[in-house]
Amino acid sequence: VNDFGIGVLGFGTVGAGVVQGLQDNGDLIASRLGVRPVLRAIADLDLTTDRGVHVDSDLLTTDAEAVIDDPAINVIVELVGGTSIARDFTIRALEAGKPVVTANKALLAKHGEELFALAESRSTEIYFGASVGGGIPIIRALREGLIANHVHSIHGILNGTCNYILTRMEEDGIAFDTVLAEAQDKGFAEADPALDIDGMDTAHKAVILGRLAYGLHASLDDITIEGIRGLSERDIKLASGLGYRIKLLAIVKKVESEIEVRVHPAMVPLDHVIASIRGVFNAVLVDGDMTGDTLYYGKGAGREPTASTVIGDIGDIMKNLQTGSARRFPPASNGVGSVSLMSPGDVRTRYYLRLSLLDKPGTFSQVAATLGDHGISIASVLQQETHAGDYVPVVVVTHEAVESDCDAAIRSIVQLDVVRDRPVRIRIEE
Amino acid sequence: VNDFGIGVLGFGTVGAGVVQGLQDNGDLIASRLGVRPVLRAIADLDLTTDRGVHVDSDLLTTDAEAVIDDPAINVIVELVGGTSIARDFTIRALEAGKPVVTANKALLAKHGEELFALAESRSTEIYFGASVGGGIPIIRALREGLIANHVHSIHGILNGTCNYILTRMEEDGIAFDTVLAEAQDKGFAEADPALDIDGMDTAHKAVILGRLAYGLHASLDDITIEGIRGLSERDIKLASGLGYRIKLLAIVKKVESEIEVRVHPAMVPLDHVIASIRGVFNAVLVDGDMTGDTLYYGKGAGREPTASTVIGDIGDIMKNLQTGSARRFPPASNGVGSVSLMSPGDVRTRYYLRLSLLDKPGTFSQVAATLGDHGISIASVLQQETHAGDYVPVVVVTHEAVESDCDAAIRSIVQLDVVRDRPVRIRIEE
Repeated sequence: VNDFGIGVLGFGTVGAGVVQGLQDNGDLIASRLGVRPVLRAIADLDLTTDRGVHVDSDLLTTDAEAVIDDPAINVIVELVGGTSIARDFTIRALEAGKPVVTANKALLAKHGEELFALAESRSTEIYFGASVGGGIPIIRALREGLIANHVHSIHGILNGTCNYILTRMEEDGIAFDTVLAEAQDKGFAEADPALDIDGMDTAHKAVILGRLAYGLHASLDDITIEGIRGLSERDIKLASGLGYRIKLLAIVKKVESEIEVRVHPAMVPLDHVIASIRGVFNAVLVDGDMTGDTLYYGKGAGREPTASTVIGDIGDIMKNLQTGSARRFPPASNGVGSVSLMSPGDVRTRYYLRLSLLDKPGTFSQVAATLGDHGISIASVLQQETHAGDYVPVVVVTHEAVESDCDAAIRSIVQLDVVRDRPVRIRIEE
Repeated sequence: VNDFGIGVLGFGTVGAGVVQGLQDNGDLIASRLGVRPVLRAIADLDLTTDRGVHVDSDLLTTDAEAVIDDPAINVIVELVGGTSIARDFTIRALEAGKPVVTANKALLAKHGEELFALAESRSTEIYFGASVGGGIPIIRALREGLIANHVHSIHGILNGTCNYILTRMEEDGIAFDTVLAEAQDKGFAEADPALDIDGMDTAHKAVILGRLAYGLHASLDDITIEGIRGLSERDIKLASGLGYRIKLLAIVKKVESEIEVRVHPAMVPLDHVIASIRGVFNAVLVDGDMTGDTLYYGKGAGREPTASTVIGDIGDIMKNLQTGSARRFPPASNGVGSVSLMSPGDVRTRYYLRLSLLDKPGTFSQVAATLGDHGISIASVLQQETHAGDYVPVVVVTHEAVESDCDAAIRSIVQLDVVRDRPVRIRIEE
């Protein structure tokens, strides 16, 4: 059994999980792999907070750079978070030719192209299994298991906080704000929940998946990112009546030589497996040209699931070091023909539009005409009798339409005298 | 890009899929991996049947041994099926130090211990991803992705024919024999469906999963194997009323130092994700000590999904050959402490028992007393009013009990004058 020195940067939740996992299951890993991870240092600015795991105080340091530079340390585990210091540390490690394991989705979404190029130039590598899907080995499945497949599309539920909120809103009929506050109380949601509920966390993961499946380095600035903030119970109920459930999805899809990358709430058919993913769980559905649909499901966050995947990556890197076979699999797919990011306005999908319409004869025909003027055809209309006032809610489900046409139609509809408020728009994924 | 010669033994459904996949997606694989699979020979006794894929006639031969011995062929793909000739070919390849890819679950279930030992002694390897779950990369997930985990349990829906039959029976209220005949018409079920519906195909896979998770070489003779033949629509309906759905499960579970390996129809809670797996799809739920539950879902059979996984394995083996790093991951887990197969009679679970009971006061108390005599306590009883005759159906759901006690109780219940027919017993998995 070969020993390899492991240095952990960042002793937060996941860092503590990795340390605990190496302690508890180190023998298991050594017996399975014939290589043993030996924790040689843990760097963090805060060395006093109790992480619920016992470590030899000799291992603790505030000097991350010394850890990176230590010749007895072969693998750097970056769990600092953020995109500034984490980037500096990762660059320093790669420049020294040391492989890096990271769970940092923001870092990879923003600086992945630079970091992967640097790793290649130094003949070393970055493993990032825990950046998407926590304990679910989805990165490995895409990179290795499905290597014979052209990927048609990926649909992911990648944020447990959002999926928990949506599940509770639907199952218990509770308002968004109430569920969010409750999730914060229970520790499922961050004190500042914006990164989760406004979709950015999911978007980071979508960018990583797009790179892995297609070699596309999409910028976060160029993709549609909509979260679940302010989603109404009414739309969740109406969706259910139409046979759909609302999920926050990351969608990565190839259409000819263009790749759609988008994050938004979407209606998915109730009887589809993706609709059955409840609570804090994550799931990723991959449609490959040979496999058809495969789905990967599990806990997408949390100390131990995430640490499991980090340690799995450490295992791979140790095997690569042992056998001198770094860069076994590509961090970004390539050579599958040139692809480019589809402009968000060019995406084609179906839409659910909920309008607040003046309750008089002939008003809906104005809406229908406006949609028709923009080339959007109506699949179904739902108007329920209400006695709530002069305005009634009307739901329109469209056939497939181009996003820029839908945007323009909504701008025109808002101008109609018979329409109050901005229509609610939710995209439909079949 | 290094070229590696591939020899395919067996030009059936999967063999044709592999040949097609290598033709269509060979460039993709080469660009991703930096190694190129070059198909050098296909051996089959039948060289005339049209397989729907065009191959150079130079590649075709009836002489499988010449393919194995050909020095230009680096990887042997065994898709012959069965456990006799397939074993001979596999042994010949391994003895020559050539790595083997196989999708042959029967071969591995029966002769895996021998074949893995031979591969080890010749410093070569067997990849078998397609032997369980077809297009789902479950073997890779268990062997590599979850390497940091002690596995608590595995629950698998691993036979698409059975799951299709159960789904149709439940959703459309059709009898077993009718659905089976229809599945045979559509080509989902074999002309001789015994291997599928009597559970042996699932049992082969359970043995492979037990070996991978625990290093346990279980014999098919020593495990519980019950299929779905003769399962009644009535029990499917009653299960639904109790909040369960019946699935044919492979269960591999660690209880202290013993491993349960069993295959039988089981009731699973309706709101559990495993209950939502419909039709021909397969799914495997793995409970690891770090990840918690993760689930893998997709097409468990068929030409292209299975070929996808075979080609994924070819990719791994080529990388191992290129870098001189064979035997990267263990084909059987080891060193996690000594484990042994639990005797089927020692398994503890809950039971659903449906009895045909004489419709007179006091008869149920005889059943309850008999169960009590065998240490089995009753959780609930369901007796619906009928006017069908002297005997009424009574459903008993038990608390957890030991299988040998349940067997003994059923033997005693059958002896009671007030009971007609053998009780129907279905195990419950929570």
